[in-house]
Amino acid sequence: MPQGPLSGVTIVDMTRVLAGPYCTMVLSDLGARIIKVEQPGNGDEARGTGPFMGEVSGYFASINRGKESIALNLKDDNDREVFRALLAGADVLIENYRPGVMEKLGFGWDVLHADHPSLIYAAVSGFGQTGPYSRRPAYDMVVQAMGGVMSLTGHSGGEPTRVGTSIGDITAALFAAIGICSALYDRSQTGEGRMIDVAMLDCQVAVLENAIARYSATGEIPGPLGARHPSIVPFDAFRTANGHIVIAAGNHGLFVTLCEALGCLDMAVDERYLSNALRAQHVDTLGEELEAVLTQYDTEHWLEVIQAAGVPCGAINNVAQVVADPQVQARNMVVSTDDADAGTIRLSGNPIKISGYEDPTTRGAVPRLDEHRDGLISEFRKLD
Amino acid sequence: MPQGPLSGVTIVDMTRVLAGPYCTMVLSDLGARIIKVEQPGNGDEARGTGPFMGEVSGYFASINRGKESIALNLKDDNDREVFRALLAGADVLIENYRPGVMEKLGFGWDVLHADHPSLIYAAVSGFGQTGPYSRRPAYDMVVQAMGGVMSLTGHSGGEPTRVGTSIGDITAALFAAIGICSALYDRSQTGEGRMIDVAMLDCQVAVLENAIARYSATGEIPGPLGARHPSIVPFDAFRTANGHIVIAAGNHGLFVTLCEALGCLDMAVDERYLSNALRAQHVDTLGEELEAVLTQYDTEHWLEVIQAAGVPCGAINNVAQVVADPQVQARNMVVSTDDADAGTIRLSGNPIKISGYEDPTTRGAVPRLDEHRDGLISEFRKLD
Repeated sequence: MPQGPLSGVTIVDMTRVLAGPYCTMVLSDLGARIIKVEQPGNGDEARGTGPFMGEVSGYFASINRGKESIALNLKDDNDREVFRALLAGADVLIENYRPGVMEKLGFGWDVLHADHPSLIYAAVSGFGQTGPYSRRPAYDMVVQAMGGVMSLTGHSGGEPTRVGTSIGDITAALFAAIGICSALYDRSQTGEGRMIDVAMLDCQVAVLENAIARYSATGEIPGPLGARHPSIVPFDAFRTANGHIVIAAGNHGLFVTLCEALGCLDMAVDERYLSNALRAQHVDTLGEELEAVLTQYDTEHWLEVIQAAGVPCGAINNVAQVVADPQVQARNMVVSTDDADAGTIRLSGNPIKISGYEDPTTRGAVPRLDEHRDGLISEFRKLD
Repeated sequence: MPQGPLSGVTIVDMTRVLAGPYCTMVLSDLGARIIKVEQPGNGDEARGTGPFMGEVSGYFASINRGKESIALNLKDDNDREVFRALLAGADVLIENYRPGVMEKLGFGWDVLHADHPSLIYAAVSGFGQTGPYSRRPAYDMVVQAMGGVMSLTGHSGGEPTRVGTSIGDITAALFAAIGICSALYDRSQTGEGRMIDVAMLDCQVAVLENAIARYSATGEIPGPLGARHPSIVPFDAFRTANGHIVIAAGNHGLFVTLCEALGCLDMAVDERYLSNALRAQHVDTLGEELEAVLTQYDTEHWLEVIQAAGVPCGAINNVAQVVADPQVQARNMVVSTDDADAGTIRLSGNPIKISGYEDPTTRGAVPRLDEHRDGLISEFRKLD
């Protein structure tokens, strides 16, 4: 286990699929010990989701490496006792069942808090522990749609577009991790455990950025803008001779610099483009004029020229290009784990770099279902 | 200031625009005190970004409510001394300058750590403190493009599509908040402050989910899928009589239930659709058959029917619908702040609900530039 700010913290993790396991993966990269409690039989559903490498799910591996696994049937008395022993030795319990399930199992917050007053309990769910939709099922796409992010993503008049990574799950994972870490700090001051209730839908609302304030200020309902910025111009993806380039001229000085770099200083003094407000009025014409220049050379040429001028720009990299990118490699953002069956599996690294702690290039093994049962039982029964 | 798990924590916040201010907004909702150090003159650039409500930027307001503001010229000796006094009384310093700026100002990590060994220092930047691109400028769209998320978002063969909310900034904000909270916990155990280095590009790689493992397992480069799930079918946005509905039939049982709810049980026994693997082979035909049924009634009808059957589904809500949604309201996810000039400004609420702490429906005022100067100077000079 890597050392980190959460070294010594033990987390009992009943979560499945994506939001919960992503949360505990982030905490594990910070040094926490994650004990994954799975259902006997097939365990976490993600174990059955492809692509497979040997018998290992690449999907499961990418968010569960380095965790320990124990399969417990929480309706079985013996397994319930093992679970209680785990809780007695844990700092945090996290689950992403539908609200009500933990109460039915006899492990609702009231019971847990009475038995283990310093235990932190985090529940991640689609709609939260309260409110009229509380018990409804949810998946990432459902909350992306209901929470407004899909209404802002895509092209005006075009087909509905989901964000290509599961930000419904992932933002819930990150907010839950913030809640857990802040509760650990709180407990270090007060000794008391807290319950944290994070809903995927709430998190989608929280990441709408300024859309609510914008709507509240103007009464206008923001729509999708393709790749364009809602108010800054030029700030878009533009065609080149062989693909696209994104250019983000965030202020007037950068626009002038961009014109200079493109060899079209006449545009910088064109009276239609003399301020961001004017450029916003002429966003389509300006885009056409820029593309007339940009399509004369390929993306690589323009990246070099515009980069050298100091104007923010970039290629639209695919996953293969991301993995090969020198900065991504220099930052150790693609790491690996070795698996006896699957061989070497490559994964995203830890984006939280912290002084004094190593940023390892490898991760712990992908646990087989119930692999750590005996060790965990003898370790935690002793504590009990 | 609301009470929360971070009550008593003081954060000196030199950040501007979005990523940094969003991070400290999240921490402020957890009870931390945020002292915003701005440049004299115009302060945070976000103050100049519309939409405006009276003289107040709705953009600025939505992420800076409840913070205190002091304008300091860090090249002026007197202001540097005030800044040092603030640091002496602070738990955390956060900034999002380009790497190198803090060292030039004489407040690099080595100096800070020597002077204030328990101070936590978080730096949020486009590309990080290390690596070949470290000193390059970045904006949200640039890292969305370079980090691979844009390559997964949009429609196959279509124009480039940016995620409609600035997840380049926001995920960096969330990872930085996790780093800060974990470092606060760490310090409660060890007494030592840490430096946290978070790069927007790294965070985009971290949220690629299983794309890296998928690419590493199969060698295939994942592309954009519109609203579709990469492997689960049906899991997409479908046309109805008056718009769209998203339906996420995450397993075979839910598919059968869906067919029953739609009154087309013949599809459940159609040999092309007997398993998820078969449905994935016939994804287009299945979609057409489902839309032939779904376009017979409007979205509201189908939401009721499919919801009642227990199959995850949802409307593609726009921002006005999100704000009016009963669950969003029940969860207090739209809050407000009153401003003497702008009136009532509505904002996203706090998605981290924690037992024992209030979840207030209002937020502190939007600070005017340098508004809290005198109070802060007399308070922190005393501590010095």
